[in-house]
Amino acid sequence: MTDPRLTPLAASLPDSVPFVGPETQERRMGRSFAARLGANENAFGPAPAAIAAMQKAAEEVWMYGDPEAHELRQAIAAHHGVDPAHIRVGEGIDGLLGLLVRLTVGPGDWVVTSEGGYPTFDFHVTGFGGRIEQVPYDGDRVDTKGLVERAGWTGAKLVYIANPDNPMGGLHDAATIREMIEALPADALLVLDEAYVEFAPEAERPEIDPADDRVIRFRTFSKAHGLAGARVGYAIGPAPLIAAFDRVRNHFGLSRISQEGALAALSAREHLDHVLTEVAAARARIAAIAHDNGLMPLPSATNFVAVDCGGDGAFARRVMEGLAARGVFVRMPGVAPLNRCIRVTAGREADLDAFAKALPQALEGARIAP
Amino acid sequence: MTDPRLTPLAASLPDSVPFVGPETQERRMGRSFAARLGANENAFGPAPAAIAAMQKAAEEVWMYGDPEAHELRQAIAAHHGVDPAHIRVGEGIDGLLGLLVRLTVGPGDWVVTSEGGYPTFDFHVTGFGGRIEQVPYDGDRVDTKGLVERAGWTGAKLVYIANPDNPMGGLHDAATIREMIEALPADALLVLDEAYVEFAPEAERPEIDPADDRVIRFRTFSKAHGLAGARVGYAIGPAPLIAAFDRVRNHFGLSRISQEGALAALSAREHLDHVLTEVAAARARIAAIAHDNGLMPLPSATNFVAVDCGGDGAFARRVMEGLAARGVFVRMPGVAPLNRCIRVTAGREADLDAFAKALPQALEGARIAP
Repeated sequence: MTDPRLTPLAASLPDSVPFVGPETQERRMGRSFAARLGANENAFGPAPAAIAAMQKAAEEVWMYGDPEAHELRQAIAAHHGVDPAHIRVGEGIDGLLGLLVRLTVGPGDWVVTSEGGYPTFDFHVTGFGGRIEQVPYDGDRVDTKGLVERAGWTGAKLVYIANPDNPMGGLHDAATIREMIEALPADALLVLDEAYVEFAPEAERPEIDPADDRVIRFRTFSKAHGLAGARVGYAIGPAPLIAAFDRVRNHFGLSRISQEGALAALSAREHLDHVLTEVAAARARIAAIAHDNGLMPLPSATNFVAVDCGGDGAFARRVMEGLAARGVFVRMPGVAPLNRCIRVTAGREADLDAFAKALPQALEGARIAP
Repeated sequence: MTDPRLTPLAASLPDSVPFVGPETQERRMGRSFAARLGANENAFGPAPAAIAAMQKAAEEVWMYGDPEAHELRQAIAAHHGVDPAHIRVGEGIDGLLGLLVRLTVGPGDWVVTSEGGYPTFDFHVTGFGGRIEQVPYDGDRVDTKGLVERAGWTGAKLVYIANPDNPMGGLHDAATIREMIEALPADALLVLDEAYVEFAPEAERPEIDPADDRVIRFRTFSKAHGLAGARVGYAIGPAPLIAAFDRVRNHFGLSRISQEGALAALSAREHLDHVLTEVAAARARIAAIAHDNGLMPLPSATNFVAVDCGGDGAFARRVMEGLAARGVFVRMPGVAPLNRCIRVTAGREADLDAFAKALPQALEGARIAP
């Protein structure tokens, strides 16, 4: 039953959501996951200084946060060596992607993305009446040339790419992204989702050129900075487009506590190095566990590893469900052939112990099942 | 300069924002406000248990919050004695109003509100291409009959009323709101913003009937619960409309820490009583300070008092600016004749001391100035 007062667009939207949370699964199962390896959260946590800053801010939470997030925006700008006019902070990349789509995609406008790419981006595009052209992956990597080519065919307003890639974990080097930008049709905007970029080798990360009005990039405090629950992301892009976010955003939407946490996290360089070391070790261990079970881990420049389970999507789903039944939460890509994989977060030692223990049983179950 | 890739609607939107934060004013002045009495924050703060819950949650902030805010939604539903299907939680009433407008107001659709009412609601309506019919206040009170009448003329999708009212502070009793609902044109939805309702006498608060599909109401943890900086509000409304929020909302937008804080605040009944007592005393003191200066305080069922400065809008503005120059942050209504008032938050003793000290000087300055 839909409400008769919905707009025609709202009435036409599906009831599906981009991601079902692990808590929903836990409620269905009637018990908690022992290892939370499905949402690419950073189990090594934020810097202690960030936790302390949030705990202090909790005592001042009767005040609204600064709607301009001025201090945080200045700090981010300084961190990247760009003018603050190129930066807007928001409620995670998810929230910022929604604002970008609202600003640029009207009913019937096209966007281009990868088939099996980020569901939340697609959710926003559909939600504003846009049309989605999906380009299949080239093997297990985003097909950058294909994206640009389809953008030309469709006259797309936006071209979305996550780099490093989610859900497969691969990285395109700076030169490839630069080529992509140079080849973009006029009027198309490259949406460069860099949620995982801190995990990629520094030398291969595409340079930030805020004066290049063909690109908007998104960063987050949810991954390398360990603040997923605080909901802070930011956009770096051309100043006129960035300024337009103020026309539509929820100005007081960012928690005061989260602003303080992000500010402290940004300057905790040593902790970030610690996280990167731990994540690299965890990735190696996931790869080793995969090999031990005769499975193939994919190369990753993120804090997760896609593991090829060696069968089809139905098989990988049985493995994922078998892991869940044994208390291990992982996710998997949504479309073939990517969905032959499960996606495992680079978690703590105990989390990966649980994964290592559950995987052989989950695989055995998957092989026996129908 | 606007970005050429904006949609026609986005390109048409003004660059103005609904509210400029006190921090922005502080940066312009080069110093901090001594008394923060302009944003109707609750300086008596949240329950200590809520602060403690948030501080504990800060240690687990590496995890995303539950996108369904299941526990909080259940607790709110139980608190009001309604089924959780009638509840959605979001990033403050501001965020939820934006979602409601998006769901129901298409380009060219009408909404009805009060002239001088809540700017953020108007911001959202304009932002989605809606048209706003503004009904003047009836004296210093929202003209409920006028709102309903204009809804009939315009075929409005939404009729907005804040009750208790912001910025004037008055309350319409339950019978008046009930009459308003009964008189609504078919297909119009009453948007009942009850941000301040906990400050109103319990007997006069309109009853909640979630089965009545003519009404959606909004509540917040920002005011009586003292969690403005955490950004948690909720909607109570007809289940099909409430369900539709999932089609457009930022599912992971709510901070994990904020969810825990709101949950703890909801059950801190004694602290709420304490806040209500303190606020009532502070309102009385603001009224006394106004009288001492020959000004007229308006009746208030909120945590602020509108004070009639006895002149026009330009005079009240000079008073407000004179207060700001003396370290006291207040706001004022945006349109005549409401803008003969300043709006003063029911703050702590020291805050009101600062107000009491600054007001005579600000008034004197306002009388001398051009």
